[in-house]
Amino acid sequence: MAFLPGSPDTSGIMKKIQASLLVVVVLEGVDSAQQGSRSSAAKLVPPATGKINVAFILTEGSVMIDFAGPWETFQDVMVSSRGPKMEDQHVFHPYTVSDSKNPIHTSGGMQITPDYTFEDAPEPMIVVIPAQMGDSPKMLDWIRKTAARGNVVMSVCNGVFNLAETGLLDGHPATSYHTSYQTLQHDFPKVQVERGRRWVQSTPTIFTAGGLSSGIDLALHIVELYYGRDIAQETARTMEYEGQGWLGDGSALVKYSRAQY
Amino acid sequence: MAFLPGSPDTSGIMKKIQASLLVVVVLEGVDSAQQGSRSSAAKLVPPATGKINVAFILTEGSVMIDFAGPWETFQDVMVSSRGPKMEDQHVFHPYTVSDSKNPIHTSGGMQITPDYTFEDAPEPMIVVIPAQMGDSPKMLDWIRKTAARGNVVMSVCNGVFNLAETGLLDGHPATSYHTSYQTLQHDFPKVQVERGRRWVQSTPTIFTAGGLSSGIDLALHIVELYYGRDIAQETARTMEYEGQGWLGDGSALVKYSRAQY
Repeated sequence: MAFLPGSPDTSGIMKKIQASLLVVVVLEGVDSAQQGSRSSAAKLVPPATGKINVAFILTEGSVMIDFAGPWETFQDVMVSSRGPKMEDQHVFHPYTVSDSKNPIHTSGGMQITPDYTFEDAPEPMIVVIPAQMGDSPKMLDWIRKTAARGNVVMSVCNGVFNLAETGLLDGHPATSYHTSYQTLQHDFPKVQVERGRRWVQSTPTIFTAGGLSSGIDLALHIVELYYGRDIAQETARTMEYEGQGWLGDGSALVKYSRAQY
Repeated sequence: MAFLPGSPDTSGIMKKIQASLLVVVVLEGVDSAQQGSRSSAAKLVPPATGKINVAFILTEGSVMIDFAGPWETFQDVMVSSRGPKMEDQHVFHPYTVSDSKNPIHTSGGMQITPDYTFEDAPEPMIVVIPAQMGDSPKMLDWIRKTAARGNVVMSVCNGVFNLAETGLLDGHPATSYHTSYQTLQHDFPKVQVERGRRWVQSTPTIFTAGGLSSGIDLALHIVELYYGRDIAQETARTMEYEGQGWLGDGSALVKYSRAQY
């Protein structure tokens, strides 16, 4: 759990809370075997210094937990070998990108003001695409170009439709929200739709999560690919996250195999 | 998974996605026994008509998944007996409340513009208090008054410190983020701090969750108290949420019982 680095510490209670957070000692462990990936992709290589930028694409109707789950996951990662300060140890830097800086409304109507547009966003190393209503040519082009430079791209839930629209999933496996399997397969016949999955590694750098909370599992899996099982496990522990879907091969505990899906 | 009711349907793909979502048929089941509550509180009574307003208190540093988890949970609840339209079936209505309508920055820096202030917020039936930096007298007074009118109040993670500041937890059990147990007990000796819990029912209408993702479990538990086990189970299924911490008595699967906590 991380509060804003550099934000004003206006409350006495917060000092105490932050002190208590320091009790969590994160030790960078030996990288565990890369279980869970069904491809032969190399482990993701983190930069020796500097942040890992994580761009969250948000437009009208962005589904709350689709982005909030990975946001929390990435920001909670602490890599103690990066330096003594909490700011150094929080290696992932999340921000929001959209067509404009006009406020968008999430599912349920929360008002979020994007940090950047597709014109001025810093280069990300990871792009997160939640389910959303927007799918502008600018967005799709930005995803294509960012992916082409070898950055990681992950969709959550019906965000896979945006990713499929880019053509990047053609000929590759992918998953989606459980009621969308059929529609995804119908609309994008070149995509190999996999059912009952928390996440699927589509290419060495492109990943698709199942619905909603499964984005947390995919984010934890990507953390593991960068920093190993121990750091990912400590992140899950920090989040008090009890789901196990990020371990193993991405198979879902709850099977969505009813005939209508 | 709900997109914004009434929001413009600008994308052809969204029509297909929304159609696929309609495949999920939610049947209101027989209320199951009220397991999980350790108090003798009556089941929560939903209104026959109209929405259940859920106010999310947000100030600077609000921790993302603390509010996003319950937000997603409440908005995903569908009660089919309420009418044929999805808008009727989505009974919970979430909105944000703060000291002012100036944008706040969540943990990690996302910019959110509050919908209401403590002066003009609609009366909620549920108040959600995530961990955050703000604890203004206005906020605390608003929590006290809202609770006094019999509405449900739930804290998530270190949001329990705000709730404890109101005095409403004096003499009652409560839980918190796992590194904050000691600080909470030290600062509020009248609170009975419980460890290793996903959630604790503090009074008939006041609840406290553990850290971060455990807010989802508490929200699901509150959904169950209103609408029974089957509706809550269907909500978890809609969310593809695999955590089991909302079932049973709120005990955590992962025990945070190290000496330092």
